[in-house]
Amino acid sequence: VKLALIGCGHIGGSLALALKRAGAVETVVGEDADPAAAERARELGILDQVGPPPASADVVVVAVPPRAVVEVCRRLHGGAAVVTDVGSVKASIVRGAESVLGGRFVGGHPMAGTERSGPDSADPALFVGRRVILTPTPQTRPDARARVRDLWLAAGAEVVDMTPEAHDAAVAALSHLPHAVAYSLAGVLAGRTELAGLAGPSFRDGTRVAATSPALWIDVLQENREALLPLLDALGARLAALRAAVAAGDADAIGRLLAEGRAARESILG
Amino acid sequence: VKLALIGCGHIGGSLALALKRAGAVETVVGEDADPAAAERARELGILDQVGPPPASADVVVVAVPPRAVVEVCRRLHGGAAVVTDVGSVKASIVRGAESVLGGRFVGGHPMAGTERSGPDSADPALFVGRRVILTPTPQTRPDARARVRDLWLAAGAEVVDMTPEAHDAAVAALSHLPHAVAYSLAGVLAGRTELAGLAGPSFRDGTRVAATSPALWIDVLQENREALLPLLDALGARLAALRAAVAAGDADAIGRLLAEGRAARESILG
Repeated sequence: VKLALIGCGHIGGSLALALKRAGAVETVVGEDADPAAAERARELGILDQVGPPPASADVVVVAVPPRAVVEVCRRLHGGAAVVTDVGSVKASIVRGAESVLGGRFVGGHPMAGTERSGPDSADPALFVGRRVILTPTPQTRPDARARVRDLWLAAGAEVVDMTPEAHDAAVAALSHLPHAVAYSLAGVLAGRTELAGLAGPSFRDGTRVAATSPALWIDVLQENREALLPLLDALGARLAALRAAVAAGDADAIGRLLAEGRAARESILG
Repeated sequence: VKLALIGCGHIGGSLALALKRAGAVETVVGEDADPAAAERARELGILDQVGPPPASADVVVVAVPPRAVVEVCRRLHGGAAVVTDVGSVKASIVRGAESVLGGRFVGGHPMAGTERSGPDSADPALFVGRRVILTPTPQTRPDARARVRDLWLAAGAEVVDMTPEAHDAAVAALSHLPHAVAYSLAGVLAGRTELAGLAGPSFRDGTRVAATSPALWIDVLQENREALLPLLDALGARLAALRAAVAAGDADAIGRLLAEGRAARESILG
């Protein structure tokens, strides 16, 4: 298997290393918007050669930020390779990529990654035991789907298939909404200097992900806005209901809202 | 020092054990709404004797749920001992208790405790290195304040003085609001069975405290409603602002809201 890699950062670099180590690919040719990153990836053994996807490539992994995936796919129009991506939003990417590449594009999203970036952060064990969501559509060629699945299995991941829309709804609920809430919960206390040093674990855990750099999240929240906006509305309505129950001293209503939350958490986390 | 204890549960039992171990009290006489709990506390060495506060008691620790504190204080009307409590809400308790006991009441709230309860969960090390907030008022007798402070210092705690109102505002912001948010964030996803098994750490941590039994929180949210309601309003407004920024594709506004949250978290946690 000849692999082409576009984007030699944390995710792309880790996948290439994992596949080489597993013997699942023979050669990796790759490039990066930053030429120094591609050269560094070659030094680290992530790439065998720096350069654009060769005509002989079997698979092209597009490991660039979500907003850039469709643009990169346009450049792959003339080829024959199976193409996949790793973007955290899927419906808009799959629509755009299929319009250019048809059934040889398979959307993917590994539920892995750390706060690190760049080729030096590549880790061949990054995907071991982690879930990867693939989003094939009726248009997807079965051989393309199998090819991409086999790559992720070789990297040690567990592969789950979902529609692009179901993927976006799930990550909006389980990742994007919790991030929006953590930033907002902390932001409500901006300027409250008298609270310094008094916080316990409920504040610390409830706002943990608000320690993440906002740069990535500005993009993600916008890219997935279709799925996120109704959830923000539902949360606003739920907080308003709790506020009304507390203001009215309605212990039954408060208890019902809290018990529903507790049960939903248990049902999701198992 | 002769200590009287009303309520022999997790907090009261732990404090009595800690004070006996530190040699800060000679005898502890105590009772509990549940006679079996008081008897068990005597077996465990928390109490030297079961019974109501004797006239000779120097300090009475009222370690009952917040809603019952003022009622218990009414029964202590005729005595002379310094009286303190451990309730997680302070303004309403201090108002009520001072109207009965005057300057010999000192409100207190140890920022400690676990999900366990009852005399068997008493742990003399529970308060070591933990913060205890005392809420003296202009009416509080200086000797009463010193007496209560010395007890907590003997138990290994760090003592901080705040007004009852400042205490309630701080715990509303740093504990009650995060709990309300965690339950609501999970509750928004009630019935979403397709999400089972897909959650990552941002959902798990963001809703961690929603695993707590709702029973306690139904009371706490209501007892502290004066401080909590404006915070729920502010959070609703902040989520609405984020929603509007995402809907409008206003990256600058999104970035500002997220950056404020990140900075506020850092400033509070240090």
